[in-house]
Amino acid sequence: MAVGNVAVPETIYAIDGIRLSTTAAGVRYPNRDDLVVIEIAESASTAVVTTKNAFCAAPVRVLRAHFAEAAPRYLVINTGNANAGTGADGLKRAEAICMALADKVGVNANTVLPFSTGVIGEPLNSDAVIAGLDSAVSNLGADNWLAAANGIRTTDTIPKVASQKISVTGTDYHVTGISKGSGMIRPNMATMLGYVATDANIAPDLLQEMLTAINEQSFNRITVDGDTSTNDCCVLIATGKADASVIDSPEHPHYQPLFAALTDVFVRLAQLIVRDGEGATKFITVKVTGGKTTQECCAVAYAVAHSPLVKTAFFASDANWGRILAAVGYAGVEDLDTEQVNVSLNEVMICQNGSVASDYTEAAGNDVMSRPEITIHIDLARGEASDIVYTCDLSYDYVKINADYRS
Amino acid sequence: MAVGNVAVPETIYAIDGIRLSTTAAGVRYPNRDDLVVIEIAESASTAVVTTKNAFCAAPVRVLRAHFAEAAPRYLVINTGNANAGTGADGLKRAEAICMALADKVGVNANTVLPFSTGVIGEPLNSDAVIAGLDSAVSNLGADNWLAAANGIRTTDTIPKVASQKISVTGTDYHVTGISKGSGMIRPNMATMLGYVATDANIAPDLLQEMLTAINEQSFNRITVDGDTSTNDCCVLIATGKADASVIDSPEHPHYQPLFAALTDVFVRLAQLIVRDGEGATKFITVKVTGGKTTQECCAVAYAVAHSPLVKTAFFASDANWGRILAAVGYAGVEDLDTEQVNVSLNEVMICQNGSVASDYTEAAGNDVMSRPEITIHIDLARGEASDIVYTCDLSYDYVKINADYRS
Repeated sequence: MAVGNVAVPETIYAIDGIRLSTTAAGVRYPNRDDLVVIEIAESASTAVVTTKNAFCAAPVRVLRAHFAEAAPRYLVINTGNANAGTGADGLKRAEAICMALADKVGVNANTVLPFSTGVIGEPLNSDAVIAGLDSAVSNLGADNWLAAANGIRTTDTIPKVASQKISVTGTDYHVTGISKGSGMIRPNMATMLGYVATDANIAPDLLQEMLTAINEQSFNRITVDGDTSTNDCCVLIATGKADASVIDSPEHPHYQPLFAALTDVFVRLAQLIVRDGEGATKFITVKVTGGKTTQECCAVAYAVAHSPLVKTAFFASDANWGRILAAVGYAGVEDLDTEQVNVSLNEVMICQNGSVASDYTEAAGNDVMSRPEITIHIDLARGEASDIVYTCDLSYDYVKINADYRS
Repeated sequence: MAVGNVAVPETIYAIDGIRLSTTAAGVRYPNRDDLVVIEIAESASTAVVTTKNAFCAAPVRVLRAHFAEAAPRYLVINTGNANAGTGADGLKRAEAICMALADKVGVNANTVLPFSTGVIGEPLNSDAVIAGLDSAVSNLGADNWLAAANGIRTTDTIPKVASQKISVTGTDYHVTGISKGSGMIRPNMATMLGYVATDANIAPDLLQEMLTAINEQSFNRITVDGDTSTNDCCVLIATGKADASVIDSPEHPHYQPLFAALTDVFVRLAQLIVRDGEGATKFITVKVTGGKTTQECCAVAYAVAHSPLVKTAFFASDANWGRILAAVGYAGVEDLDTEQVNVSLNEVMICQNGSVASDYTEAAGNDVMSRPEITIHIDLARGEASDIVYTCDLSYDYVKINADYRS
């Protein structure tokens, strides 16, 4: 069960210049939507970030090559098989899918970007994907964002959608996005896929800078199990269909509001992945302040967020906060003065100057631990830097889901 | 249930110059041996390594100070409470225990080294420990190694003992050791305690060098859950009682055979911790060869050994080897040519040149995955370096044990 508010927005704004479709192509399972196609208007700018895993999947290699050559017009996404660890044959299959789609819609194959998610190391049934493309192309529509969010799910228990409308000095902008992922989640992307579009008109180079920066605060700050997948990708599209001038620098008066709206949508989509983390029963925000650098805050936050002992204590609603201290202690912060460190859970201070807070009670600790949403605030008290990471607890169901995934 | 051969040795050699005792002091639970005292002959050399966790526990701070001042004569170890995250009060309690024992036996307090293991962040019942010291001192005996191994257990399901006798050009040497730990296990020591003694006569500086080197191949190469505890310590004692000259350099003819015997005992004690890993059903050796440096081999081995997805796949006996590839891929090896990488499980080659091995079958993969002892051999094929890490799988019971630990 996903944790907290994971509702699909009441209004999902269509983005002028984007059409989507979903098809049951039978990649791995019958009668399950497993193929999504996204059409991008010719006018659009598109930015992409991809996994840093050295074993990046065949579609990731192909999409990097295509993206370097041409502005994308189509995204083709299959679930059920990651087409990773599949060598030269995997590359051929990813290319074949792009070529088949390109032929059907009359564009060059290098304007099609392929994405796959699912089991690693087995041949992708590309024939099934290709056979599904006719239906995919004929069903393209502007209002299929929720269907597409469902179509990219694997072990996800909920569709993940975020959507916003903002008005900036008379111009209406819309931002809508979808994401998937619930295990193999960690910085530098994961089994995670994310697609966000806006009708704003943003120059390609600036859009890429925005995506990189926003990604650092959203998809690169979540972890379920510390595993970085071979297939993680995130795409940001600006179709340019809104009635306004091109935004080509951070000084443009529309830049900051749009950056904020895009960040909201990305953070929501990233948090939804954690809320739907495999087996998650708690949504945990790890906030580290008072560091000398963002890097050390991030290292502390991830040490805590990755610790199986911390995560099982949260699952048990057990205020065994010593496990948090231990994780802070092995995060590798140089010359950490542990006698300055303070730790709170929501409003309950548990650790003051490196040991039990004077007014801390076990009852208060267990009360706060039993809530579904908990912020761990760690203050290192040695500088001005801060960082935030989102994670979940580690439950029986995490083990069950990952031990049973292929059966 | 611990995995594979975890039997206590048929013969546990007493070490001339070492006496041990075990007492039920009631630190946390009644009627459970929770206090161990080890007496060291005045003639002995002693070497110590301690946790690198910044939040090191009070006893670790006290023992570091004591060890810097004087040669140790007594080790006093309690379970049930780690005396960590306990501030100045914790230091006082650890000192009080050392002083009480020193008074009883007529030595200086700084020749007593304290050790604690158990829950972090709660005050240690030092009165109970002190009240148990009379019994502890009166029961000291040379043949209590197994009792001591039982006395230092917390979540351990088995006592951990290793013992060897070697003969070197007419001199008999004995090596006996005990260890504890089954969760919060990771390099740089863990909730791990280890005590090894030999009757060899080894100069203190050389003994410390030997301990540091042997530790790198044993206790610093195991992981259950990636958590490094605040209390990890390992002690190596050479009592000098064997009938032979002092060994003061690696050129001494007895050095190499003794180093090998000590390494055997340390590796066995370290492996026993993994075999008894919380919830473990499989014992997994991760062997990485063909690296440019030992560091990168170690990084790859730990990435695989820490991956929850790899560990749950082993629990499920599911040859989902793509998860191994993914972990190799995110280990951070610079310029890794994934098309050179080979991976085997025992004798079954699963990945050849970065993708599925040509003669690999799912049946062969699942057969090897169902065995209780599995070696994952990853060949990076880019150099001559290698390293080995020992780990276990991740099961429902790991979550259960760590979610229930305090209840």
